[in-house]
Amino acid sequence: MAERTRSGGGDATRRGARGEERRAEIVRRALEVIAERGYRGATLGAVAERVGLTQQGLLHYFPTKEALLVAVLDERDQWDTGSARPSASGGWPLDLLASLVEYNAMRPGVVQTFSALLGESVTDDHPAREFFTRRYERVRAEMAATLRGEFGDRLPGGLTPEEAAPLLVAVMDGLQYQWLHDPEGVDMPAAFRSFLTLLGRSAAPRG
Amino acid sequence: MAERTRSGGGDATRRGARGEERRAEIVRRALEVIAERGYRGATLGAVAERVGLTQQGLLHYFPTKEALLVAVLDERDQWDTGSARPSASGGWPLDLLASLVEYNAMRPGVVQTFSALLGESVTDDHPAREFFTRRYERVRAEMAATLRGEFGDRLPGGLTPEEAAPLLVAVMDGLQYQWLHDPEGVDMPAAFRSFLTLLGRSAAPRG
Repeated sequence: MAERTRSGGGDATRRGARGEERRAEIVRRALEVIAERGYRGATLGAVAERVGLTQQGLLHYFPTKEALLVAVLDERDQWDTGSARPSASGGWPLDLLASLVEYNAMRPGVVQTFSALLGESVTDDHPAREFFTRRYERVRAEMAATLRGEFGDRLPGGLTPEEAAPLLVAVMDGLQYQWLHDPEGVDMPAAFRSFLTLLGRSAAPRG
Repeated sequence: MAERTRSGGGDATRRGARGEERRAEIVRRALEVIAERGYRGATLGAVAERVGLTQQGLLHYFPTKEALLVAVLDERDQWDTGSARPSASGGWPLDLLASLVEYNAMRPGVVQTFSALLGESVTDDHPAREFFTRRYERVRAEMAATLRGEFGDRLPGGLTPEEAAPLLVAVMDGLQYQWLHDPEGVDMPAAFRSFLTLLGRSAAPRG
């Protein structure tokens, strides 16, 4: 999301910059709390305590738990795509996507928060609905660009990148639910690599 | 879920049978309310009114909203798989699965309820967690049986039925979230048919 820049003179700009720094620190701390305690444990009170604010003080920056969690997930997206997008074409290479799934399998608290909030957001009036709707649009476009970079206008199985992109996104989201329900029984990174095989990459050697 | 049969004489059995009938009627009515009003609108109060019970009377059968919704989703599963499983082998033919996705695209309230409850259930202590964990195990096994019936021990792309089954389930669940967030922009049945193409079926002719 674009940061809102504040109009006004030097003082206001400095106050704005300090406010943005403070927001960014709260988001980093919230991510720590989520990683340690999961979705339910990431209360506004727990985050406020970690940042050294009163809960009232935290509400000044994030009026609801949902607003804070959306900021955390947005930050995670920017971090993940920033580190995984070395090309100017705008897409993520599929290998880096596989690494991202491996990385996600090491941070269940964050995946749980994403999945729980995505579930809640399907109702019309949920505060995170717009975030996920826009995120899906953006991520599908990025995935289509990745697939086009890798395979051209047709994948080996005959689909266009635009047909395959929603499936790539669906598999990532859907596997997370299965893995969260059965972390021992579901090997999320291996399942994702199987999907890349289906998309037309040669299968990795089996160990 | 197995119905608990009650031990005892004729009176108790009749009372038990009447209780089960009443429960079944509540579940049918709840499904109607869900179809009309979606997840948030399907309150215990709204369902009680539809059935002609007080909310207190409804709580006798279903102590929480989650318990009622789990019963509804379980009933839906039995109905869907009952009508879509003509073979003794236990799997759903893939064509019937595609029809099921088309049918789901006509009942957003039910899909929304499934998706919202699945999202909530990723936390450790959620009352629907066990339902979804068991459901995933069962559905993955059914999908693997379907894929084996269709393709044998290897799919055209090289995956085993057990490798492809979690992907089939993930695509169904994941596409529902994308569709709920953008029903005009995401053609869920077409996307699912694209996935069946990926799995190795010949593509349907394009109109």
